Amino acid sequence: MNPKYKILFDKIKEYEAIVIAKHVNPDFDAIGSAYGLKILIDENFKNKKVYVVGSNIDDSKILNPDLTDEVFSKALLITCDTANLERVDFDNFDKVKEVFKIDHHVDGENFGNYKLVDVNAIACCQVIAHWAMTLNLKISKGAATHLYKGIVTDSNRFMYKNTSAQTFLVAAELMNCGIDLNEIYDSLYIRKLKIQKWINNCFQKAVFDSEIAHIKIYEKDYQNLNLTLDEIKSPLGSICGIEEIKVSILATEIDGVVKVSLRSKKIPINEIAKNHGGGGHHLAAACKLSNWKEFETLLLEVKELIARTNL
Amino acid sequence: MNPKYKILFDKIKEYEAIVIAKHVNPDFDAIGSAYGLKILIDENFKNKKVYVVGSNIDDSKILNPDLTDEVFSKALLITCDTANLERVDFDNFDKVKEVFKIDHHVDGENFGNYKLVDVNAIACCQVIAHWAMTLNLKISKGAATHLYKGIVTDSNRFMYKNTSAQTFLVAAELMNCGIDLNEIYDSLYIRKLKIQKWINNCFQKAVFDSEIAHIKIYEKDYQNLNLTLDEIKSPLGSICGIEEIKVSILATEIDGVVKVSLRSKKIPINEIAKNHGGGGHHLAAACKLSNWKEFETLLLEVKELIARTNL
Repeated sequence: MNPKYKILFDKIKEYEAIVIAKHVNPDFDAIGSAYGLKILIDENFKNKKVYVVGSNIDDSKILNPDLTDEVFSKALLITCDTANLERVDFDNFDKVKEVFKIDHHVDGENFGNYKLVDVNAIACCQVIAHWAMTLNLKISKGAATHLYKGIVTDSNRFMYKNTSAQTFLVAAELMNCGIDLNEIYDSLYIRKLKIQKWINNCFQKAVFDSEIAHIKIYEKDYQNLNLTLDEIKSPLGSICGIEEIKVSILATEIDGVVKVSLRSKKIPINEIAKNHGGGGHHLAAACKLSNWKEFETLLLEVKELIARTNL
Repeated sequence: MNPKYKILFDKIKEYEAIVIAKHVNPDFDAIGSAYGLKILIDENFKNKKVYVVGSNIDDSKILNPDLTDEVFSKALLITCDTANLERVDFDNFDKVKEVFKIDHHVDGENFGNYKLVDVNAIACCQVIAHWAMTLNLKISKGAATHLYKGIVTDSNRFMYKNTSAQTFLVAAELMNCGIDLNEIYDSLYIRKLKIQKWINNCFQKAVFDSEIAHIKIYEKDYQNLNLTLDEIKSPLGSICGIEEIKVSILATEIDGVVKVSLRSKKIPINEIAKNHGGGGHHLAAACKLSNWKEFETLLLEVKELIARTNL
């Protein structure tokens, strides 16, 4: 057993108050880690006060009226799914007693008094679920549902690279905790008709040229559609996974800047994002451009990259 | 351990020649079961001659020039992933010595001298993989890749209802056999640009009315596109999974008849397919109509069904 598993267990046991934070703009892995862990603590440790802080998945604020400075001063803070201090959705770092970081990101910043970081895990939820099953904690359907959602979304349903034997073992264990796959997938994958139409209309405008697919979205295209940022960017998926296309690009005009998302099948494209002040992974990167002219430059750079790369 | 596991093992051990058949128009579960099992036998049992018979996934014929009547007369036939005798892609039932049926379908026909049928398994590949891992057989990357593909496609990547803890345990074991997820998903999910465009164009013509989405495809729509039947029908996926839609219908004119595929979120629609000489599952059914007028009748029936069903 990973010796850090015992330390996490002991630290939770030691504190009466536990505050769980996650990253800003939380996704299902951040939310699932935080609430999954909260339920695990509530159900396996006696007499704890456990608070999840920050924002909900819809960006509304989580309310904790009885979370006072007095509570903070005796609390353990656990950060979930957050690599860097500045991304933690919590302002009272100086008020809590100790900090325990649980994460799965590579290149994370070294903060916190204790750490449980598994960069091979596809999701922070996998780290927490594996910790719980290894320590034979009771995992209720509620906790399991939260943890499974994080794993499913971060792995794109067991598709992305870091999906491992451990990912599937954890999924098997969570199934045995009584989770309802239909319910979970309905909550994650059902799309509004207006979103499907939006994706389809954007695909109609996609340009396929020199093994590059790109879609340009202007503010006027979506301004009356009442879409979230994630929804506005969702047409990117429709141009990825096409045989003839090596690099897919979505460029979205937002508040006067052009946000660019790049996806590649094999050719590393994060250097191009870096050239324009952005960054990311080899096959998924992003940057912000000041105008559409700069986007044409970026398109040319991608074209040249493909021409000189034999991948 | 399921006692039938031992019988399958002993029967394979007993025979020198083993013929493996699967259903006509094989999918990845049929092909994966057959070749996965062939490789398992080749690698775990000594001095066997193992033949997979019937068609490949592209409908080309699998050739076995040394599979003579003499071989048949001493052979064990194993049928994979095939519920009914008439669907077995093999004409020489009367020539083989014994028949072993391995399957996962409900309502299967009772044929064969021995059976290993697990109706709770999401795929026949899961039955075979679980048999192999329970008996501690060596599972090479080649066998594991075939078996994983069957599980992934029949479960729609761990999404459909019969996905279970065992499904994930088997997937974990196959991961430990060294399968390459990227390679597998690339081979299964990469779409040609013309297919993505076809899906998108069909979606543009979809009609959304009274919680029903339907797409009509005429022969002239696809006659110059060089698409397979599966490709022609692929736009159905684009109208399923939409929040406002309870029933999705794709109607395709093929050789003068109208083939109808129905998908439902909750309302059982197989009765409607039955009314028109078809059938299927509660939430996924199909039928053939003689003309477009009958399709309008079917549409009305679906509308009435939705109106009187509180689901």
